[in-house]
Amino acid sequence: MAYTPVTRLHVDAPLAEGAEIALDAKAAHYLKNVLRLGPGARVALFNGRDGEWWGEVALLGKNGGTVRLGEQRRKPRPEPDLWLVFAPVKHARIDYIVEKATELGTSEIRPVMTERTNVARVNLDRLKANAREAAEQTERLTLPEIHAPEKLADLLASWPRGRSLLVCDESGTAPPIAEALAKRAPGPWAVLVGPEGGFADSELDLLRKLPFVCAVGLGPRVLRADTAAIAALALLQAILGDWRDGRGA
Amino acid sequence: MAYTPVTRLHVDAPLAEGAEIALDAKAAHYLKNVLRLGPGARVALFNGRDGEWWGEVALLGKNGGTVRLGEQRRKPRPEPDLWLVFAPVKHARIDYIVEKATELGTSEIRPVMTERTNVARVNLDRLKANAREAAEQTERLTLPEIHAPEKLADLLASWPRGRSLLVCDESGTAPPIAEALAKRAPGPWAVLVGPEGGFADSELDLLRKLPFVCAVGLGPRVLRADTAAIAALALLQAILGDWRDGRGA
Repeated sequence: MAYTPVTRLHVDAPLAEGAEIALDAKAAHYLKNVLRLGPGARVALFNGRDGEWWGEVALLGKNGGTVRLGEQRRKPRPEPDLWLVFAPVKHARIDYIVEKATELGTSEIRPVMTERTNVARVNLDRLKANAREAAEQTERLTLPEIHAPEKLADLLASWPRGRSLLVCDESGTAPPIAEALAKRAPGPWAVLVGPEGGFADSELDLLRKLPFVCAVGLGPRVLRADTAAIAALALLQAILGDWRDGRGA
Repeated sequence: MAYTPVTRLHVDAPLAEGAEIALDAKAAHYLKNVLRLGPGARVALFNGRDGEWWGEVALLGKNGGTVRLGEQRRKPRPEPDLWLVFAPVKHARIDYIVEKATELGTSEIRPVMTERTNVARVNLDRLKANAREAAEQTERLTLPEIHAPEKLADLLASWPRGRSLLVCDESGTAPPIAEALAKRAPGPWAVLVGPEGGFADSELDLLRKLPFVCAVGLGPRVLRADTAAIAALALLQAILGDWRDGRGA
Protein backbone atom coordinates (compact mmCIF):
# COMPACT_ATOMS: atom_id res chain seq x y z
CA MET A 1 0.00 0.00 0.00
CA ALA A 2 3.02 2.26 0.03
CA TYR A 3 2.06 4.63 -2.76
CA THR A 4 2.84 8.34 -2.80
CA PRO A 5 -0.30 10.44 -3.02
CA VAL A 6 -0.32 12.70 -6.07
CA THR A 7 -2.29 15.93 -6.22
CA ARG A 8 -4.70 15.30 -9.07
CA LEU A 9 -7.11 17.74 -10.65
CA HIS A 10 -9.86 17.21 -13.18
CA VAL A 11 -10.07 19.92 -15.84
CA ASP A 12 -12.09 20.31 -19.04
CA ALA A 13 -9.35 21.60 -21.38
CA PRO A 14 -7.51 19.37 -23.88
CA LEU A 15 -4.22 18.11 -22.43
CA ALA A 16 -0.92 17.90 -24.32
CA GLU A 17 2.76 18.43 -23.59
CA GLY A 18 3.67 22.08 -23.14
CA ALA A 19 0.05 23.25 -22.90
CA GLU A 20 -0.82 25.99 -20.40
CA ILE A 21 -3.97 24.96 -18.60
CA ALA A 22 -6.11 27.53 -16.84
CA LEU A 23 -7.45 26.65 -13.40
CA ASP A 24 -10.68 28.17 -12.16
CA ALA A 25 -10.81 30.13 -8.91
CA LYS A 26 -11.99 27.11 -6.93
CA ALA A 27 -9.14 24.87 -8.04
CA ALA A 28 -6.61 27.66 -7.45
CA HIS A 29 -8.02 28.24 -3.96
CA TYR A 30 -7.81 24.53 -3.20
CA LEU A 31 -4.16 24.28 -4.25
CA LYS A 32 -3.13 27.50 -2.54
CA ASN A 33 -5.14 27.57 0.67
CA VAL A 34 -6.04 23.94 1.39
CA LEU A 35 -2.93 22.12 0.13
CA ARG A 36 -0.63 25.15 0.67
CA LEU A 37 1.03 24.71 -2.71
CA GLY A 38 2.70 27.48 -4.68
CA PRO A 39 4.32 28.03 -8.08
CA GLY A 40 6.61 25.13 -9.00
CA ALA A 41 4.46 22.49 -7.27
CA ARG A 42 3.95 19.27 -9.18
CA VAL A 43 0.38 18.19 -9.92
CA ALA A 44 -1.32 15.78 -12.31
CA LEU A 45 -4.22 16.76 -14.56
CA PHE A 46 -6.83 14.59 -16.26
CA ASN A 47 -9.88 15.43 -18.35
CA GLY A 48 -11.54 12.09 -19.04
CA ARG A 49 -10.21 11.94 -22.63
CA ASP A 50 -6.44 12.45 -22.85
CA GLY A 51 -5.15 10.27 -20.03
CA GLU A 52 -3.24 12.07 -17.29
CA TRP A 53 -0.43 14.62 -17.52
CA TRP A 54 2.18 15.89 -15.11
CA GLY A 55 2.13 19.63 -14.70
CA GLU A 56 3.87 22.39 -12.81
CA VAL A 57 1.92 25.15 -11.14
CA ALA A 58 2.92 28.41 -12.85
CA LEU A 59 0.57 30.85 -11.18
CA LEU A 60 -2.00 30.80 -8.38
CA GLY A 61 -4.17 33.84 -7.77
CA LYS A 62 -7.53 34.82 -6.35
CA ASN A 63 -9.34 34.39 -9.64
CA GLY A 64 -7.60 31.30 -10.92
CA GLY A 65 -4.25 29.95 -11.90
CA THR A 66 -2.25 28.16 -14.59
CA VAL A 67 -0.47 24.84 -14.82
CA ARG A 68 2.16 24.12 -17.47
CA LEU A 69 2.00 20.52 -18.68
CA GLY A 70 5.03 18.25 -18.90
CA GLU A 71 5.01 14.55 -19.71
CA GLN A 72 2.04 12.26 -19.94
CA ARG A 73 1.72 10.29 -16.71
CA ARG A 74 -0.78 7.72 -17.99
CA LYS A 75 -2.41 7.02 -21.35
CA PRO A 76 -6.19 6.84 -21.63
CA ARG A 77 -7.47 3.32 -21.13
CA PRO A 78 -10.79 1.53 -21.35
CA GLU A 79 -12.93 2.05 -18.25
CA PRO A 80 -15.65 -0.24 -16.90
CA ASP A 81 -19.14 0.10 -18.38
CA LEU A 82 -21.08 -0.10 -15.13
CA TRP A 83 -24.16 1.88 -14.11
CA LEU A 84 -25.50 2.54 -10.67
CA VAL A 85 -29.27 3.10 -10.64
CA PHE A 86 -30.53 4.11 -7.21
CA ALA A 87 -33.40 5.77 -5.41
CA PRO A 88 -32.08 8.99 -3.84
CA VAL A 89 -31.62 8.95 -0.07
CA LYS A 90 -30.82 11.78 2.29
CA HIS A 91 -27.77 14.05 2.17
CA ALA A 92 -24.85 12.34 3.86
CA ARG A 93 -25.81 8.96 2.45
CA ILE A 94 -26.30 10.12 -1.12
CA ASP A 95 -22.90 11.85 -0.98
CA TYR A 96 -21.40 8.64 0.24
CA ILE A 97 -23.05 6.55 -2.48
CA VAL A 98 -21.67 8.81 -5.22
CA GLU A 99 -18.19 8.88 -3.67
CA LYS A 100 -18.00 5.11 -3.30
CA ALA A 101 -19.57 4.37 -6.70
CA THR A 102 -16.87 6.58 -8.24
CA GLU A 103 -14.09 4.77 -6.38
CA LEU A 104 -15.55 1.44 -7.47
CA GLY A 105 -15.38 2.41 -11.14
CA THR A 106 -19.04 3.19 -11.92
CA SER A 107 -19.36 4.89 -15.33
CA GLU A 108 -22.89 6.29 -14.99
CA ILE A 109 -24.84 7.27 -11.90
CA ARG A 110 -28.59 7.40 -12.43
CA PRO A 111 -30.93 8.49 -9.66
CA VAL A 112 -34.44 7.10 -10.15
CA MET A 113 -37.71 7.95 -8.49
CA THR A 114 -39.62 4.93 -7.24
CA GLU A 115 -43.00 4.70 -5.53
CA ARG A 116 -41.56 4.90 -2.05
CA THR A 117 -38.75 7.36 -2.74
CA ASN A 118 -39.26 10.18 -0.27
CA VAL A 119 -36.49 12.48 -1.41
CA ALA A 120 -38.02 14.98 -3.81
CA ARG A 121 -35.01 16.88 -5.08
CA VAL A 122 -31.47 15.88 -5.95
CA ASN A 123 -28.70 18.48 -5.98
CA LEU A 124 -26.87 17.42 -9.12
CA ASP A 125 -24.07 19.97 -8.71
CA ARG A 126 -23.33 18.56 -5.30
CA LEU A 127 -23.26 15.01 -6.63
CA LYS A 128 -20.97 16.08 -9.48
CA ALA A 129 -18.58 17.76 -7.05
CA ASN A 130 -18.49 14.59 -4.94
CA ALA A 131 -17.77 12.44 -7.96
CA ARG A 132 -15.04 14.76 -9.13
CA GLU A 133 -13.33 14.81 -5.75
CA ALA A 134 -13.51 11.02 -5.47
CA ALA A 135 -12.10 10.59 -8.99
CA GLU A 136 -9.24 12.97 -8.19
CA GLN A 137 -8.35 11.03 -5.06
CA THR A 138 -8.80 7.54 -6.43
CA GLU A 139 -6.53 7.68 -9.51
CA ARG A 140 -9.45 7.42 -11.94
CA LEU A 141 -8.87 8.92 -15.37
CA THR A 142 -12.54 9.77 -15.91
CA LEU A 143 -15.54 11.09 -14.03
CA PRO A 144 -18.73 9.09 -13.87
CA GLU A 145 -21.61 10.70 -15.74
CA ILE A 146 -24.27 11.92 -13.31
CA HIS A 147 -27.78 11.90 -14.73
CA ALA A 148 -30.80 13.93 -13.69
CA PRO A 149 -33.40 11.89 -11.80
CA GLU A 150 -36.00 10.09 -13.87
CA LYS A 151 -38.81 7.68 -13.10
CA LEU A 152 -37.74 4.08 -12.63
CA ALA A 153 -40.50 2.92 -14.98
CA ASP A 154 -39.28 5.29 -17.71
CA LEU A 155 -35.70 4.07 -17.43
CA LEU A 156 -36.83 0.43 -17.55
CA ALA A 157 -39.03 1.12 -20.57
CA SER A 158 -36.05 2.43 -22.54
CA TRP A 159 -33.52 -0.05 -21.16
CA PRO A 160 -30.55 -0.55 -23.53
CA ARG A 161 -30.29 -3.89 -25.27
CA GLY A 162 -27.56 -6.12 -23.88
CA ARG A 163 -27.18 -4.48 -20.46
CA SER A 164 -27.91 -6.72 -17.46
CA LEU A 165 -29.51 -5.27 -14.33
CA LEU A 166 -28.52 -6.62 -10.93
CA VAL A 167 -31.41 -6.01 -8.54
CA CYS A 168 -30.74 -6.09 -4.81
CA ASP A 169 -33.80 -8.01 -3.64
CA GLU A 170 -34.55 -8.15 0.08
CA SER A 171 -37.48 -10.54 -0.21
CA GLY A 172 -35.32 -13.52 0.75
CA THR A 173 -36.29 -15.49 -2.36
CA ALA A 174 -33.51 -14.39 -4.71
CA PRO A 175 -30.31 -16.47 -5.04
CA PRO A 176 -27.18 -15.31 -3.16
CA ILE A 177 -25.20 -12.71 -5.10
CA ALA A 178 -21.89 -14.60 -5.46
CA GLU A 179 -23.64 -17.75 -6.69
CA ALA A 180 -25.75 -15.79 -9.18
CA LEU A 181 -22.86 -13.74 -10.56
CA ALA A 182 -20.63 -16.80 -10.97
CA LYS A 183 -23.12 -18.05 -13.58
CA ARG A 184 -23.15 -14.82 -15.55
CA ALA A 185 -20.87 -13.30 -18.17
CA PRO A 186 -18.95 -10.03 -18.09
CA GLY A 187 -20.40 -7.20 -20.16
CA PRO A 188 -22.38 -4.04 -19.57
CA TRP A 189 -24.08 -4.25 -16.18
CA ALA A 190 -26.10 -1.99 -13.92
CA VAL A 191 -26.88 -2.23 -10.21
CA LEU A 192 -30.35 -1.21 -8.97
CA VAL A 193 -30.89 -0.32 -5.32
CA GLY A 194 -34.30 0.70 -3.99
CA PRO A 195 -35.24 3.36 -1.45
CA GLU A 196 -35.02 2.88 2.32
CA GLY A 197 -38.68 1.81 2.36
CA GLY A 198 -38.07 -0.84 -0.28
CA PHE A 199 -39.67 -1.31 -3.68
CA ALA A 200 -43.47 -1.45 -3.95
CA ASP A 201 -44.88 -4.89 -4.75
CA SER A 202 -45.91 -3.67 -8.20
CA GLU A 203 -42.34 -2.55 -8.88
CA LEU A 204 -40.93 -5.89 -7.77
CA ASP A 205 -43.44 -7.72 -9.96
CA LEU A 206 -42.43 -5.64 -12.95
CA LEU A 207 -38.71 -6.09 -12.28
CA ARG A 208 -38.98 -9.85 -11.97
CA LYS A 209 -40.62 -10.12 -15.37
CA LEU A 210 -37.91 -8.21 -17.22
CA PRO A 211 -35.55 -10.49 -19.13
CA PHE A 212 -32.45 -8.39 -18.36
CA VAL A 213 -32.99 -8.48 -14.58
CA CYS A 214 -30.83 -10.65 -12.32
CA ALA A 215 -32.31 -10.46 -8.80
CA VAL A 216 -29.92 -11.38 -5.99
CA GLY A 217 -29.91 -11.54 -2.21
CA LEU A 218 -27.31 -9.80 -0.05
CA GLY A 219 -27.40 -12.01 3.01
CA PRO A 220 -29.46 -12.39 6.16
CA ARG A 221 -29.19 -8.86 7.56
CA VAL A 222 -31.13 -5.82 6.39
CA LEU A 223 -28.69 -3.51 4.63
CA ARG A 224 -29.15 0.22 4.28
CA ALA A 225 -29.47 1.37 0.68
CA ASP A 226 -25.94 2.80 0.59
CA THR A 227 -24.43 -0.42 1.93
CA ALA A 228 -26.33 -2.51 -0.62
CA ALA A 229 -25.14 -0.27 -3.46
CA ILE A 230 -21.49 -0.46 -2.43
CA ALA A 231 -21.57 -4.20 -1.75
CA ALA A 232 -23.25 -4.97 -5.08
CA LEU A 233 -20.81 -2.79 -7.06
CA ALA A 234 -17.81 -4.37 -5.32
CA LEU A 235 -19.13 -7.89 -5.99
CA LEU A 236 -19.78 -7.12 -9.65
CA GLN A 237 -16.32 -5.62 -10.15
CA ALA A 238 -14.64 -8.50 -8.30
CA ILE A 239 -16.50 -11.35 -10.01
CA LEU A 240 -17.22 -10.00 -13.49
CA GLY A 241 -15.45 -6.63 -13.75
CA ASP A 242 -12.01 -5.13 -13.86
CA TRP A 243 -10.93 -6.31 -10.41
CA ARG A 244 -10.26 -9.69 -12.03
CA ASP A 245 -7.16 -8.34 -13.76
CA GLY A 246 -5.27 -7.17 -10.71
CA ARG A 247 -3.97 -3.64 -10.37
CA GLY A 248 -3.25 -3.18 -14.08
CA ALA A 249 -1.51 -0.14 -15.52
CA MET B 1 -37.61 -5.18 -0.31
CA ALA B 2 -41.07 -4.51 1.08
CA TYR B 3 -40.36 -5.09 4.73
CA THR B 4 -41.95 -3.16 7.59
CA PRO B 5 -39.38 -1.37 9.70
CA VAL B 6 -39.53 -2.39 13.34
CA THR B 7 -38.33 -0.15 16.16
CA ARG B 8 -35.55 -2.20 17.72
CA LEU B 9 -33.57 -1.46 20.86
CA HIS B 10 -30.51 -3.11 22.30
CA VAL B 11 -30.62 -3.55 26.10
CA ASP B 12 -28.40 -5.35 28.57
CA ALA B 13 -31.07 -7.01 30.73
CA PRO B 14 -32.09 -10.67 30.33
CA LEU B 15 -35.18 -11.02 28.10
CA ALA B 16 -38.12 -13.36 28.76
CA GLU B 17 -41.88 -13.32 28.31
CA GLY B 18 -43.61 -11.01 30.76
CA ALA B 19 -40.41 -9.33 31.92
CA GLU B 20 -40.46 -5.60 32.60
CA ILE B 21 -37.37 -4.09 31.04
CA ALA B 22 -36.04 -0.74 32.18
CA LEU B 23 -34.94 1.72 29.50
CA ASP B 24 -32.27 4.31 30.24
CA ALA B 25 -32.92 8.01 29.78
CA LYS B 26 -31.33 8.04 26.33
CA ALA B 27 -33.48 5.22 24.98
CA ALA B 28 -36.61 6.76 26.49
CA HIS B 29 -35.76 10.11 24.94
CA TYR B 30 -35.22 8.48 21.55
CA LEU B 31 -38.58 6.70 21.61
CA LYS B 32 -40.50 9.70 22.94
CA ASN B 33 -38.89 12.68 21.24
CA VAL B 34 -37.31 11.29 18.08
CA LEU B 35 -39.77 8.55 17.09
CA ARG B 36 -42.74 10.24 18.85
CA LEU B 37 -43.87 7.00 20.42
CA GLY B 38 -45.89 6.73 23.63
CA PRO B 39 -47.20 4.04 25.99
CA GLY B 40 -48.66 1.12 24.07
CA ALA B 41 -46.22 1.39 21.18
CA ARG B 42 -44.78 -1.87 19.91
CA VAL B 43 -41.02 -2.30 19.93
CA ALA B 44 -38.56 -5.20 19.73
CA LEU B 45 -35.73 -5.72 22.20
CA PHE B 46 -32.51 -7.73 21.85
CA ASN B 47 -29.51 -8.18 24.13
CA GLY B 48 -27.08 -10.31 22.14
CA ARG B 49 -27.95 -13.47 24.08
CA ASP B 50 -31.68 -14.20 24.21
CA GLY B 51 -32.75 -13.57 20.63
CA GLU B 52 -35.32 -10.83 20.12
CA TRP B 53 -38.60 -10.12 21.92
CA TRP B 54 -41.68 -8.09 21.15
CA GLY B 55 -42.49 -5.55 23.81
CA GLU B 56 -45.01 -2.85 24.59
CA VAL B 57 -43.93 0.49 25.90
CA ALA B 58 -45.42 0.87 29.39
CA LEU B 59 -43.86 4.13 30.49
CA LEU B 60 -41.70 6.86 29.01
CA GLY B 61 -40.32 9.61 31.21
CA LYS B 62 -37.44 12.01 31.46
CA ASN B 63 -35.23 9.62 33.38
CA GLY B 64 -36.07 6.42 31.59
CA GLY B 65 -38.94 4.11 30.77
CA THR B 66 -40.17 0.53 30.83
CA VAL B 67 -41.14 -2.00 28.21
CA ARG B 68 -43.25 -5.08 29.00
CA LEU B 69 -42.15 -8.09 26.98
CA GLY B 70 -44.54 -10.29 25.03
CA GLU B 71 -43.62 -13.09 22.65
CA GLN B 72 -40.20 -13.93 21.34
CA ARG B 73 -39.80 -12.52 17.84
CA ARG B 74 -36.65 -14.46 16.91
CA LYS B 75 -34.55 -17.11 18.62
CA PRO B 76 -30.82 -16.61 19.08
CA ARG B 77 -28.86 -18.00 16.16
CA PRO B 78 -25.21 -18.47 15.24
CA GLU B 79 -23.61 -15.28 13.98
CA PRO B 80 -20.61 -14.94 11.66
CA ASP B 81 -17.15 -15.12 13.23
CA LEU B 82 -15.58 -12.28 11.28
CA TRP B 83 -13.16 -9.64 12.51
CA LEU B 84 -12.37 -6.28 11.05
CA VAL B 85 -8.86 -5.08 11.89
CA PHE B 86 -8.23 -1.54 10.69
CA ALA B 87 -6.01 1.47 11.19
CA PRO B 88 -8.18 4.29 12.57
CA VAL B 89 -9.04 7.09 10.16
CA LYS B 90 -10.71 10.41 10.80
CA HIS B 91 -14.13 10.97 12.33
CA ALA B 92 -16.77 10.65 9.63
CA ARG B 93 -14.95 7.78 7.97
CA ILE B 94 -14.34 5.78 11.13
CA ASP B 95 -18.02 6.15 12.03
CA TYR B 96 -18.89 4.89 8.61
CA ILE B 97 -16.54 1.91 8.84
CA VAL B 98 -18.09 0.80 12.13
CA GLU B 99 -21.63 1.27 10.86
CA LYS B 100 -21.01 -0.70 7.68
CA ALA B 101 -18.97 -3.42 9.38
CA THR B 102 -21.90 -3.94 11.75
CA GLU B 103 -24.39 -4.17 8.89
CA LEU B 104 -22.12 -6.65 7.14
CA GLY B 105 -22.08 -8.96 10.15
CA THR B 106 -18.64 -8.32 11.64
CA SER B 107 -18.34 -9.89 15.10
CA GLU B 108 -15.26 -8.01 16.37
CA ILE B 109 -13.94 -4.60 15.43
CA ARG B 110 -10.27 -4.09 16.26
CA PRO B 111 -8.55 -0.77 15.66
CA VAL B 112 -4.79 -1.20 15.26
CA MET B 113 -1.99 1.31 15.26
CA THR B 114 0.40 0.94 12.34
CA GLU B 115 3.53 2.90 11.49
CA ARG B 116 1.72 5.40 9.31
CA THR B 117 -1.48 5.67 11.35
CA ASN B 118 -1.88 9.35 12.07
CA VAL B 119 -4.97 9.21 14.27
CA ALA B 120 -3.78 9.16 17.85
CA ARG B 121 -6.98 8.61 19.80
CA VAL B 122 -10.08 6.56 19.17
CA ASN B 123 -13.34 7.44 20.90
CA LEU B 124 -14.56 3.96 21.81
CA ASP B 125 -17.87 5.15 23.25
CA ARG B 126 -18.64 6.82 19.96
CA LEU B 127 -17.77 3.66 18.01
CA LYS B 128 -19.92 1.58 20.35
CA ALA B 129 -22.86 3.94 19.90
CA ASN B 130 -22.48 3.71 16.11
CA ALA B 131 -22.36 -0.07 16.23
CA ARG B 132 -25.41 -0.23 18.46
CA GLU B 133 -27.45 2.04 16.22
CA ALA B 134 -26.45 0.08 13.12
CA ALA B 135 -27.33 -3.23 14.82
CA GLU B 136 -30.72 -1.85 15.86
CA GLN B 137 -31.49 -0.76 12.31
CA THR B 138 -30.13 -3.79 10.50
CA GLU B 139 -32.02 -6.59 12.27
CA ARG B 140 -28.88 -7.99 13.88
CA LEU B 141 -29.38 -9.91 17.12
CA THR B 142 -25.96 -9.01 18.51
CA LEU B 143 -23.56 -6.10 18.70
CA PRO B 144 -20.04 -6.41 17.40
CA GLU B 145 -17.42 -6.28 20.12
CA ILE B 146 -15.36 -3.09 19.87
CA HIS B 147 -11.80 -3.43 21.11
CA ALA B 148 -9.46 -0.75 22.37
CA PRO B 149 -6.69 0.09 19.90
CA GLU B 150 -3.53 -2.00 20.06
CA LYS B 151 -0.36 -2.18 18.03
CA LEU B 152 -0.64 -4.16 14.81
CA ALA B 153 2.55 -6.05 15.66
CA ASP B 154 1.12 -7.07 19.06
CA LEU B 155 -2.09 -8.37 17.54
CA LEU B 156 -0.18 -10.34 14.92
CA ALA B 157 2.13 -11.80 17.56
CA SER B 158 -0.84 -13.24 19.48
CA TRP B 159 -2.88 -14.17 16.42
CA PRO B 160 -5.37 -16.97 17.17
CA ARG B 161 -4.69 -20.34 15.61
CA GLY B 162 -7.02 -21.17 12.73
CA ARG B 163 -8.10 -17.63 11.83
CA SER B 164 -7.23 -16.45 8.32
CA LEU B 165 -6.35 -12.82 7.68
CA LEU B 166 -7.40 -11.18 4.43
CA VAL B 167 -4.99 -8.33 3.74
CA CYS B 168 -6.03 -5.62 1.28
CA ASP B 169 -2.75 -5.16 -0.59
CA GLU B 170 -2.38 -2.16 -2.90
CA SER B 171 1.02 -3.15 -4.26
CA GLY B 172 -0.52 -4.64 -7.40
CA THR B 173 1.19 -8.00 -6.92
CA ALA B 174 -1.51 -9.80 -4.92
CA PRO B 175 -4.09 -11.99 -6.70
CA PRO B 176 -7.58 -10.53 -7.30
CA ILE B 177 -9.89 -10.95 -4.29
CA ALA B 178 -12.63 -13.09 -5.90
CA GLU B 179 -10.10 -15.51 -7.41
CA ALA B 180 -8.21 -15.83 -4.10
CA LEU B 181 -11.33 -16.35 -1.98
CA ALA B 182 -12.75 -18.95 -4.35
CA LYS B 183 -9.78 -21.18 -3.43
CA ARG B 184 -10.24 -20.79 0.32
CA ALA B 185 -12.53 -22.44 2.86
CA PRO B 186 -15.13 -20.89 5.17
CA GLY B 187 -14.10 -20.52 8.80
CA PRO B 188 -12.95 -17.74 11.09
CA TRP B 189 -11.65 -14.85 9.03
CA ALA B 190 -10.43 -11.33 9.61
CA VAL B 191 -10.03 -8.42 7.21
CA LEU B 192 -7.04 -6.07 7.61
CA VAL B 193 -7.11 -2.59 6.11
CA GLY B 194 -4.17 -0.20 6.45
CA PRO B 195 -4.13 3.56 7.07
CA GLU B 196 -4.63 6.18 4.34
CA GLY B 197 -0.85 6.38 3.88
CA GLY B 198 -0.56 2.63 3.37
CA PHE B 199 1.46 0.06 5.29
CA ALA B 200 5.19 0.62 5.76
CA ASP B 201 7.40 -1.72 3.75
CA SER B 202 8.52 -3.46 6.94
CA GLU B 203 4.89 -4.13 7.84
CA LEU B 204 4.15 -5.54 4.39
CA ASP B 205 7.22 -7.77 4.59
CA LEU B 206 6.09 -9.09 7.97
CA LEU B 207 2.52 -9.65 6.79
CA ARG B 208 3.60 -11.56 3.69
CA LYS B 209 5.61 -14.00 5.78
CA LEU B 210 2.76 -14.91 8.11
CA PRO B 211 1.18 -18.27 7.27
CA PHE B 212 -2.36 -17.12 8.08
CA VAL B 213 -2.24 -14.12 5.74
CA CYS B 214 -4.09 -14.11 2.42
CA ALA B 215 -3.08 -10.93 0.53
CA VAL B 216 -5.51 -9.82 -2.19
CA GLY B 217 -5.90 -6.99 -4.64
CA LEU B 218 -9.04 -4.85 -4.92
CA GLY B 219 -8.80 -3.75 -8.52
CA PRO B 220 -7.04 -1.08 -10.54
CA ARG B 221 -8.23 2.03 -8.69
CA VAL B 222 -6.91 3.34 -5.38
CA LEU B 223 -9.61 2.79 -2.76
CA ARG B 224 -9.95 4.81 0.40
CA ALA B 225 -9.51 2.76 3.56
CA ASP B 226 -13.23 2.74 4.35
CA THR B 227 -14.13 1.56 0.84
CA ALA B 228 -11.55 -1.22 0.99
CA ALA B 229 -12.89 -2.40 4.37
CA ILE B 230 -16.50 -2.52 3.18
CA ALA B 231 -15.66 -4.15 -0.14
CA ALA B 232 -13.50 -6.84 1.50
CA LEU B 233 -16.12 -7.64 4.15
CA ALA B 234 -18.87 -7.88 1.52
CA LEU B 235 -16.74 -10.17 -0.65
CA LEU B 236 -15.87 -12.44 2.28
CA GLN B 237 -19.50 -12.69 3.37
CA ALA B 238 -20.69 -13.32 -0.20
CA ILE B 239 -18.08 -15.93 -1.16
CA LEU B 240 -17.29 -17.68 2.15
CA GLY B 241 -19.72 -16.30 4.73
CA ASP B 242 -23.39 -16.26 5.59
CA TRP B 243 -24.54 -14.52 2.42
CA ARG B 244 -24.26 -17.91 0.71
CA ASP B 245 -27.38 -19.16 2.49
CA GLY B 246 -29.80 -16.50 1.28
CA ARG B 247 -31.85 -14.46 3.71
CA GLY B 248 -32.10 -17.23 6.32
CA ALA B 249 -34.39 -17.04 9.32
